[in-house]
Amino acid sequence: MRPFAPIFVPDELADTLSDRAWLEGMLQAERALVQAEARAGLVTAEAASAVSDVLASDRYDPDVLAAEGRGAGNPVEPLVRAIRTQVGDEHAGAVHRGATSQDILDTAAVLVARRALRFVDGEVASAADACARLADEHRAAVMAARTLLQQAVPTTFGYKAAGWLVGLVEARSRLAAVVLPAQLGGAAGTLAALGADGVEVVRLYAAELDLPEPVLPWHARRTPFSDLAGSLAAVADAVGKIARDVVLLAQTEVGEVAERDGGASSTMPHKRNPISAVLAEACTRHARANAALLLEASVHEHERAAGAWHAEWAALNGALAATGGAASAIARCLERLEVDVARMRANLVPATLSEAERLGLHPAGPEDYLGSADIFIDRALALHRS
Amino acid sequence: MRPFAPIFVPDELADTLSDRAWLEGMLQAERALVQAEARAGLVTAEAASAVSDVLASDRYDPDVLAAEGRGAGNPVEPLVRAIRTQVGDEHAGAVHRGATSQDILDTAAVLVARRALRFVDGEVASAADACARLADEHRAAVMAARTLLQQAVPTTFGYKAAGWLVGLVEARSRLAAVVLPAQLGGAAGTLAALGADGVEVVRLYAAELDLPEPVLPWHARRTPFSDLAGSLAAVADAVGKIARDVVLLAQTEVGEVAERDGGASSTMPHKRNPISAVLAEACTRHARANAALLLEASVHEHERAAGAWHAEWAALNGALAATGGAASAIARCLERLEVDVARMRANLVPATLSEAERLGLHPAGPEDYLGSADIFIDRALALHRS
Amino acid sequence: MRPFAPIFVPDELADTLSDRAWLEGMLQAERALVQAEARAGLVTAEAASAVSDVLASDRYDPDVLAAEGRGAGNPVEPLVRAIRTQVGDEHAGAVHRGATSQDILDTAAVLVARRALRFVDGEVASAADACARLADEHRAAVMAARTLLQQAVPTTFGYKAAGWLVGLVEARSRLAAVVLPAQLGGAAGTLAALGADGVEVVRLYAAELDLPEPVLPWHARRTPFSDLAGSLAAVADAVGKIARDVVLLAQTEVGEVAERDGGASSTMPHKRNPISAVLAEACTRHARANAALLLEASVHEHERAAGAWHAEWAALNGALAATGGAASAIARCLERLEVDVARMRANLVPATLSEAERLGLHPAGPEDYLGSADIFIDRALALHRS
Amino acid sequence: MRPFAPIFVPDELADTLSDRAWLEGMLQAERALVQAEARAGLVTAEAASAVSDVLASDRYDPDVLAAEGRGAGNPVEPLVRAIRTQVGDEHAGAVHRGATSQDILDTAAVLVARRALRFVDGEVASAADACARLADEHRAAVMAARTLLQQAVPTTFGYKAAGWLVGLVEARSRLAAVVLPAQLGGAAGTLAALGADGVEVVRLYAAELDLPEPVLPWHARRTPFSDLAGSLAAVADAVGKIARDVVLLAQTEVGEVAERDGGASSTMPHKRNPISAVLAEACTRHARANAALLLEASVHEHERAAGAWHAEWAALNGALAATGGAASAIARCLERLEVDVARMRANLVPATLSEAERLGLHPAGPEDYLGSADIFIDRALALHRS
Repeated sequence: MRPFAPIFVPDELADTLSDRAWLEGMLQAERALVQAEARAGLVTAEAASAVSDVLASDRYDPDVLAAEGRGAGNPVEPLVRAIRTQVGDEHAGAVHRGATSQDILDTAAVLVARRALRFVDGEVASAADACARLADEHRAAVMAARTLLQQAVPTTFGYKAAGWLVGLVEARSRLAAVVLPAQLGGAAGTLAALGADGVEVVRLYAAELDLPEPVLPWHARRTPFSDLAGSLAAVADAVGKIARDVVLLAQTEVGEVAERDGGASSTMPHKRNPISAVLAEACTRHARANAALLLEASVHEHERAAGAWHAEWAALNGALAATGGAASAIARCLERLEVDVARMRANLVPATLSEAERLGLHPAGPEDYLGSADIFIDRALALHRS
Repeated sequence: MRPFAPIFVPDELADTLSDRAWLEGMLQAERALVQAEARAGLVTAEAASAVSDVLASDRYDPDVLAAEGRGAGNPVEPLVRAIRTQVGDEHAGAVHRGATSQDILDTAAVLVARRALRFVDGEVASAADACARLADEHRAAVMAARTLLQQAVPTTFGYKAAGWLVGLVEARSRLAAVVLPAQLGGAAGTLAALGADGVEVVRLYAAELDLPEPVLPWHARRTPFSDLAGSLAAVADAVGKIARDVVLLAQTEVGEVAERDGGASSTMPHKRNPISAVLAEACTRHARANAALLLEASVHEHERAAGAWHAEWAALNGALAATGGAASAIARCLERLEVDVARMRANLVPATLSEAERLGLHPAGPEDYLGSADIFIDRALALHRS
Repeated sequence: MRPFAPIFVPDELADTLSDRAWLEGMLQAERALVQAEARAGLVTAEAASAVSDVLASDRYDPDVLAAEGRGAGNPVEPLVRAIRTQVGDEHAGAVHRGATSQDILDTAAVLVARRALRFVDGEVASAADACARLADEHRAAVMAARTLLQQAVPTTFGYKAAGWLVGLVEARSRLAAVVLPAQLGGAAGTLAALGADGVEVVRLYAAELDLPEPVLPWHARRTPFSDLAGSLAAVADAVGKIARDVVLLAQTEVGEVAERDGGASSTMPHKRNPISAVLAEACTRHARANAALLLEASVHEHERAAGAWHAEWAALNGALAATGGAASAIARCLERLEVDVARMRANLVPATLSEAERLGLHPAGPEDYLGSADIFIDRALALHRS
Repeated sequence: MRPFAPIFVPDELADTLSDRAWLEGMLQAERALVQAEARAGLVTAEAASAVSDVLASDRYDPDVLAAEGRGAGNPVEPLVRAIRTQVGDEHAGAVHRGATSQDILDTAAVLVARRALRFVDGEVASAADACARLADEHRAAVMAARTLLQQAVPTTFGYKAAGWLVGLVEARSRLAAVVLPAQLGGAAGTLAALGADGVEVVRLYAAELDLPEPVLPWHARRTPFSDLAGSLAAVADAVGKIARDVVLLAQTEVGEVAERDGGASSTMPHKRNPISAVLAEACTRHARANAALLLEASVHEHERAAGAWHAEWAALNGALAATGGAASAIARCLERLEVDVARMRANLVPATLSEAERLGLHPAGPEDYLGSADIFIDRALALHRS
């Protein structure tokens, strides 16, 4: 999300998505490959050791690899050349043996995503915790439920926050269900260059990386990334819902919530902008756009796509950055949310009991027309704890 | 997918998505509601019976409801009025009691989707069966693996089909994991009008409909539909991959597959267009576009969205129609796929063994450089059977 | 936008987009073709007359064509067969001479779009007229300008409406600039079957249809449709802006505008939902989604796309229906908009003058801090009249 | 397009889109503002000079501004503070007078876009020149026209290139028609803080920047950016069409074109990947995704959007980077395109004359069945020269 990325993307997350981080992922993949092949007896331990010794990331410059990668259309080709140069002629043949560029880059992408997802999930968890506190604390905070942005019937802020909470919990479950396996298949996914040992090498390679072993190589079947895209979109949805509600509740004329230390204005000192919610909203747009790009790019021709594959890298990075940015912003928003329960009660118009009256229920007041709100809050909290 | 919808959408699927089918879903929801309330003691058995008696779908005209629904912005409001007129004053109060329009329409959408998904899943299953047959039958059919659409190394058509198969199997798993619960919550999701019985009524309502009970009402948390959208996109991806490969393999200059009874041309009698694959490809575009629309529309303001909700209906219908159309077309394509194994072998250029030569492997021929292809076919077939 | 299309799409517009309307477009194209060829001396006047005599649309059933078109992947192939049957063997050769299916269907699409665009433009014009009235009438209606949904400084409702107006006027200009030429090229765009007369036949064909003549056939260069998509998205944007603002201004807590005869609620008699704005908002989502689909589908392989072309038809129809629905709904909304100027003034918080105070300007009141609002209103009205 | 951006985005273009470039745009806007106000007599010449003296971009650090901008949600607020600090108390009041953050950032975006568009247009022009050469040179290069990727009838490579050319020329026209005016309006677009001089200050401000003057401030009417988005999508379409065709023509089994110095493979020395076309294709996906994001984000609430505005910056940057990357890659591809006319002729199957035979035309050979191809090439070349 450039320019001015730090406004949207936390530094810690940005680090996990940097060119350097991708390079490290690529080097991890090459190391795992040569180690797995050593264990399988395809290369000597000495060769594996020699190769591994030159795989420190500070030996390579991602900018140079990117510049040199223009010719081949990916950064792996120049990286493999550079590694071979570093390791010398004797063991050059043990580098990248039987692999194709996509194996290394896909595995790097998985490693990058795994690390970034930890950040994303942590922020979603923080936001969920904040929602749980709000739900529990504000069970009795009666406010207007609004349909089509018109006051409809009473609800409580606790119940509203419980709804947000369930959205976040469901999004976390969705994230947790994503399977990102290692990728190793060679140009055709047959592992032909590894002879009879291919399947065993894949197993060892995945184990080295602590990644799930794929049923089949997925070079041209992008389920892992489209599934990831779907789960990031789910996070964006859950965050976007909260952001939208907060912005609406924070309107001057509503004034039911505010962000503590809300955004300053360059010219209007009185304003208290719900800026974290606003930034979260902006991030969700980029999260969804990049997720949609990944979904659209998941049809790959034959055994490697002519473009769709290359488009994935930035889409993946963009989706992770924006989703993490969104989650982080909403967590900050929720943690600093000031709730004006008096204003909630005062805003509630009498007509919100008209449904009850029409049904002949005659509640004593809105507090008496909240139905199962509390039960649902308990359910949401239980789901959160489970 | 109008105009000329039958080109894309099978009649059987179209029936499940018609206005009439939606109306029936709405009536089922109203019936389940009044029956659940009768069981909970909120309305009399007599009233429930009287209401149920007027819920046959032929008593209502979806065109009239749509026309009258323009004022309220949805078809439930005029439907409820019509039901009340039919049932008469005595039991009018037992109609739609405690529910809001969205409860009825969301539940109808779920019922419609459930029925349509059966069709979609059946077509994906047929396509998967066809892939499994192709994978098994063509284990020995050596052909070129192509990366960036350039011949790279040898593979087999069986292995290619095994990759398609795994995509379809994963898509079916994804479909099977979608949870579409009943929706009942009243305007705020509190079930206020049902007093202390709200939660019990929801349980009974869901049971009547044979639908999962929701943890919380989801009127403003659209996880079920965004999850459905994601799973339909997954089907579209799996189908789109096959369609693309078939179109490429069927090119005049490649000629490795053809659709039996392929599409005729209005002017060029010699052509054998891979028309089912082409139609599948077109359908996947609409599937993805509607899925993206659903994902984008899943942020709902407050307790009912001012537009996003209304946009869901056609997006849901469109996504189901297009995904089903895609699955149906690809099943037909695969079932009629003629595979020219001789042409596959003949097309293979010698340079596809250059990697092997460079590695000093000197295979006797492409048949000797297929690595783990067969093992992966077995894995795919096992996954399919499981 | 099914199900319940009439909620969203006016009947008059729906008629222009029906299968029957598309069929009529196809028949118009065939008639123009044979007439142009007769003028060019490629077919006899007698043959042209015989063919034209059987081109009445009631001789053909679009449902049958759609069903039969499944095999060829388009409805033109069965239509041409049917026309030839109707005209008899003697003149069958004069039917569809030198054309390809895509010529007929693309031209039909252009004719359908041209007619639908008249409706769309009329609705946008009505909406613009309503905005102009509001802008002029409410020059003095002081209200809060809101940034990030927080009151910022004063503005007037007239100025706000002037901004809406300019958006609509710009969208109309954009629509007016779209060029939708006739399409005729034969399978390769070379018009080979017309020999030396190809270019002249295209000229006559376009003239018969009162359509612009294309510089080159555009069978695989979809500028006309992507340009149309862009212009429909522009309309959707202009409409969406108004819809969003109206929904926000109509909130219970703001109450500055309302739709006369606003949407009734099935359960809450007090509500006055801004339902036309809500429906407009829903329509803009479908307009944008279908426009995006058209833009994405505008890369066509070689001389006819294997899927992207087939996906256009429903995307075009959908984009036109939804954009027209959006424009129509917003026109109705604006024509019935009740403006509560007293509430606008009362809502304005004193802090909206804090910027002025900080700058040392000390305006007597918000009426005294409106800057160039009136000048800009005049500019907007002048632009509208021009 | 990170990671490894240099693979996709030329350095020269990346420079125009850097944080530093955005900062310079912001400073240019502040300078134009104070100069315009000095001319209008709102600030003294001395103050304007003092402010201008501290606006050199090396006095400010975009990373710091981004980090500090998190609180306000944009980088302008900290920048204005920093400028005021630099200029000192005496003239601090002359900094950013009457403007709002969005004025500065929107104008900066326009300046950034203007500069980037020069690059984009230059690359499209280069690509168009290359197409024109190919069209003229290969008028006689008979090849198969392919519909649904099946050989249909003969065409020429010159005609194919002429079609590409027209797409590029139309895209350039579309780019040239985009109007990106200066933005100045203050928080509400009323220019209230500038009193009676607002309109004149806008005129002078735009003149200082050599930008068009807006009819009305466009802070909440995003026509300039959505129009830009549409035009970038048009470029992406024109580029994407060429990229797709080149990739298909370069297939091993077709072999009609190749990129000189085509992409090397890390493992398969024989391959000549059409890597520039592949990278162009990948870029078009990001161009379209970001353009769609801009179109979707063009509905802004009230007088400044709570998220949609903030999402624009990265979308604009991304769309420009990807479109420029696509245009640059396709220009390189076309400039190095090797055309194998013998292979084109050899690939042509006899059945491509079946249409002619059916029509009784009996051409001597494919060279005799090319219709108006040459006339259309001349038209395309004339359009290009005009």
